[in-house]
Amino acid sequence: MKGYVQVYTGNGKGKTTASLGLIMRALGKNLKVYMAQFMKGQKYGELNILEKLGVLVERFGTDECIMSPKDVSEEDKIKAKEGYSKVKEILLSKKYDLVVLDEICVSTYFNLITEEEILHLIDIKPSETELVLTGRYAPKKVIERADLVTEMMEIKHYYSQGVMARDGIER
Amino acid sequence: MKGYVQVYTGNGKGKTTASLGLIMRALGKNLKVYMAQFMKGQKYGELNILEKLGVLVERFGTDECIMSPKDVSEEDKIKAKEGYSKVKEILLSKKYDLVVLDEICVSTYFNLITEEEILHLIDIKPSETELVLTGRYAPKKVIERADLVTEMMEIKHYYSQGVMARDGIER
Repeated sequence: MKGYVQVYTGNGKGKTTASLGLIMRALGKNLKVYMAQFMKGQKYGELNILEKLGVLVERFGTDECIMSPKDVSEEDKIKAKEGYSKVKEILLSKKYDLVVLDEICVSTYFNLITEEEILHLIDIKPSETELVLTGRYAPKKVIERADLVTEMMEIKHYYSQGVMARDGIER
Repeated sequence: MKGYVQVYTGNGKGKTTASLGLIMRALGKNLKVYMAQFMKGQKYGELNILEKLGVLVERFGTDECIMSPKDVSEEDKIKAKEGYSKVKEILLSKKYDLVVLDEICVSTYFNLITEEEILHLIDIKPSETELVLTGRYAPKKVIERADLVTEMMEIKHYYSQGVMARDGIER
């Protein structure tokens, strides 16, 4: 089965969760899944279930929430580089049917991953592997190279009503 | 914890999978989840995993793919009505923290569920329950009543390259 490159970008809620749903669907058909989460060190609710389902999830971020490129720490940079190397290894191993790189798109906005690095990952992707990239600000060339792109547009968000992130819903 | 109404609509890929991801996250925090799939009778890959995770999923559709409102059969109508009654019961039971009504929005386009019926479900939703509605063509009044709305916009889709739905990825 030929694998494609899917991108979930935009400012709306649903990018990471869409990739989690793809993982669930893939597992239901016994596909092998790897997930890397860039810029995330926090333990989101989904990790408990992914672990239970035997999915290898690696996180290449710190606990700090990065709001602006000037907040990026040395540790953030080291972790992102580590993630990039690991993902290259994972792709070259040809062991996985579905590889999800969560928040890799927004990592370019924070100068943690370059556009060229993402394009390189697409280049080395085994032809049978489905590669899913999430995060805001997907670079233009990545969108050009992708086979499927969905932009999640925020029409309305309860954060603007002052609702804070909730356990089990946002994290 | 107060629950809100989330809508995932639009023509792009990622609506159902976003709701599946929300389910995964909720289960990771031990929330109780119910999912109804309208207009779907086919066994998608995710059902195997949802079953394994102990989630009650009920499907209120037939195996036939409905392409146009004139393709709707009597059986489709009966199933949708059955689904609507069951969802009312589920909401009134107050037993679930997260209730996902997959494809309920597009069901209005096919005249299987009315806009008023969806508004009624929002009305009877217990205040602590998170209600997630997916599907294209979310009616205007439903969008008005929702707290969070993401429109999944198709920027690019490999279906236009002639790629068919694949096991473990699309179904």
